[in-house]
Amino acid sequence: MTLSPDRFLADLHTLRSIGAAGVGKGVQRRAFSDADLEARRWLMGRFAEAGLTPHMDPCGTVFGLADGPSLLIGSHSDTQPDGGWLDGALGVIAGLEVARAVDRPVSVVSCQDEEGRFGALTGSTVWSGGMSLAEADALRDDAGQSFGAVRAGLTEAGAFVDPARFTGFLEMHIEQGPVLDTTGERIGVVSDIVGIRDMRITLTGQQNHAGTTPMGLRLDAFQALSAFNATLNERLRNVVTPQTVWTIGHVALHPNASSVVPGQVRFSMQWRDGDLDRLSRMEAVIRETVQDIATEYGVECELSPVQGIDPVAMDAGLRDALARAANDVAPGQWRHMPSGALHDASNVARHLPVAMLFVPSIGGISHNFAEDTNEADLVTGLEVLARAVAAL
Amino acid sequence: MTLSPDRFLADLHTLRSIGAAGVGKGVQRRAFSDADLEARRWLMGRFAEAGLTPHMDPCGTVFGLADGPSLLIGSHSDTQPDGGWLDGALGVIAGLEVARAVDRPVSVVSCQDEEGRFGALTGSTVWSGGMSLAEADALRDDAGQSFGAVRAGLTEAGAFVDPARFTGFLEMHIEQGPVLDTTGERIGVVSDIVGIRDMRITLTGQQNHAGTTPMGLRLDAFQALSAFNATLNERLRNVVTPQTVWTIGHVALHPNASSVVPGQVRFSMQWRDGDLDRLSRMEAVIRETVQDIATEYGVECELSPVQGIDPVAMDAGLRDALARAANDVAPGQWRHMPSGALHDASNVARHLPVAMLFVPSIGGISHNFAEDTNEADLVTGLEVLARAVAAL
Repeated sequence: MTLSPDRFLADLHTLRSIGAAGVGKGVQRRAFSDADLEARRWLMGRFAEAGLTPHMDPCGTVFGLADGPSLLIGSHSDTQPDGGWLDGALGVIAGLEVARAVDRPVSVVSCQDEEGRFGALTGSTVWSGGMSLAEADALRDDAGQSFGAVRAGLTEAGAFVDPARFTGFLEMHIEQGPVLDTTGERIGVVSDIVGIRDMRITLTGQQNHAGTTPMGLRLDAFQALSAFNATLNERLRNVVTPQTVWTIGHVALHPNASSVVPGQVRFSMQWRDGDLDRLSRMEAVIRETVQDIATEYGVECELSPVQGIDPVAMDAGLRDALARAANDVAPGQWRHMPSGALHDASNVARHLPVAMLFVPSIGGISHNFAEDTNEADLVTGLEVLARAVAAL
Repeated sequence: MTLSPDRFLADLHTLRSIGAAGVGKGVQRRAFSDADLEARRWLMGRFAEAGLTPHMDPCGTVFGLADGPSLLIGSHSDTQPDGGWLDGALGVIAGLEVARAVDRPVSVVSCQDEEGRFGALTGSTVWSGGMSLAEADALRDDAGQSFGAVRAGLTEAGAFVDPARFTGFLEMHIEQGPVLDTTGERIGVVSDIVGIRDMRITLTGQQNHAGTTPMGLRLDAFQALSAFNATLNERLRNVVTPQTVWTIGHVALHPNASSVVPGQVRFSMQWRDGDLDRLSRMEAVIRETVQDIATEYGVECELSPVQGIDPVAMDAGLRDALARAANDVAPGQWRHMPSGALHDASNVARHLPVAMLFVPSIGGISHNFAEDTNEADLVTGLEVLARAVAAL
């Protein structure tokens, strides 16, 4: 085995330079942006140089395929609008280095739109059969562009890859949370991935002049949103655990001008938990709260279909191989832990045994230009991954 | 006097066609947009045809100047992002028709940026000395463009017009509220204009991953905004009257993505009241609430300078001339009333005696594509204005 940490780090930094934000190590490489497509074409070139057959599927997911049955390793190379350099990219480049170094067939993948410009994990959701391509084509981003319209520009896209050619899937990722950084441990072997639910809610009141419309006659969409948020926080207390999270991360007021009572607001509602039943009970509370606020504030409400991924347990065999390798490489410096973030592995688990490992995130910071990990920890993660693959 | 209602209405509809939204009678003619500049150039042409000398000042305010001392009549021709066809435009075209019809010197004006793309009533504020041109140049719109940069494109702009050449200022406007429409009256003679205060508030927390950051460790800017809004509504109850209004009309989250805990929010805070002291007491409550929420939520806050216009009483002589004319044209169908909306007349009052009259707004709706007034009411307003001017 000729694992090359230098080659691995050099490739990571080259990928970082495509869509570099110019702020720290930050990257702006949203799915289907010019930078994202340039990165995918660069990856296909690196796959070919490694002796793998490059292939792009109809969603823009790119593979480096080994001949015959192989293990699949990877993650995604698209980023959040203002993203970090390691989220996704680390898993793809680690897969590439392991494929180059380990003496057994390994294929590599970078899934498309993991970061949810259109939905959540769009590329791996469609590939794993979680959604039809026609359903995905109808998804729209915040600017109203459809997935179908942007993927129509992928002139080099071929067919979907048959998952049956792979024997399992491994994904290495930054933790994106504070646990390993706080404990000083260097590796997390993932036990399970929490489930996620995502929807868009629109509240429509009455747009009017902010000077002549008395407070009591207003149907102010922002006031309805603020009241929804406060009431929801109160009601969820009886349902959640300390591990549960929920977020309103996107808000669009209309017409969004200081002298106009907002007539409409469209916002995202996302919630995550490891328990399938709790996810459903939270959805019921959200729906009930929207209805109550709509009635109280005299606004109309519209709820999009709920998208999401159920909680997923890791494959025992692959997970144990990662744990043994972690114990060899970093004895006393690793732990089993759940993943609070969603990953492509959640989707791939529909077809294949999957497992994941984490390296620390400095300060627990991710989805941010400041996202970072010590390079020594990146290399430790690579060594654990390669050792587990070699031992399988 | 040869007042022509047909010519007046035809000019109003021509102006409406410049920047027509294609939805009802709606107009999109924001200050310095292509449509706004086209409308201003069209107005200058109409002024010249009426025997007035067309002139654009450094802010983009356009005049049709009569020779020698004259009365000034007008309003503004820029609109809200999604605006109505009469807000501002009515006062300009009414001034033009009166100038054409009445046998005494009348000048006409369309002030620039009344609708506050950059501040509030930017053109008339600078013209009246409420702000220096250098201060105005530093104002930025929501997209970050400066007033100075956009007005630099005004190749035909000349000097500021000396206000001393005018003997008074009259502004006819739609009410933009429900009073006249509800009572069935046709004319409102304005007693005074309420004051307005406007500021931008920025709350900065910590941008992070919406899956891995526990609720208790978040510094979520949207949550801070929601709590600020709720607390402010509660605290203002002890300060306000039923005529007081306050509005959060513009909200910009960053990075505004569903899977990211919002790290920053920038929003507008606007409040209006007829009492100068109450405006100041409200400002104190707003500042105190921002500080309290910043402390409670662990976010940083930044408050822009407060802009605004003080409450303004109308000139008794001009107001009485309008009242006598209203009584002649629409006996029993008019009233004295305050203006809840801000107008260019508030600024012009620094230099000149000013007065205003209102015509009804159907449903009280304004700042909206649905804004409208019966054409019979528009003509009644024109007749009152012309009669008052002739009698002065």
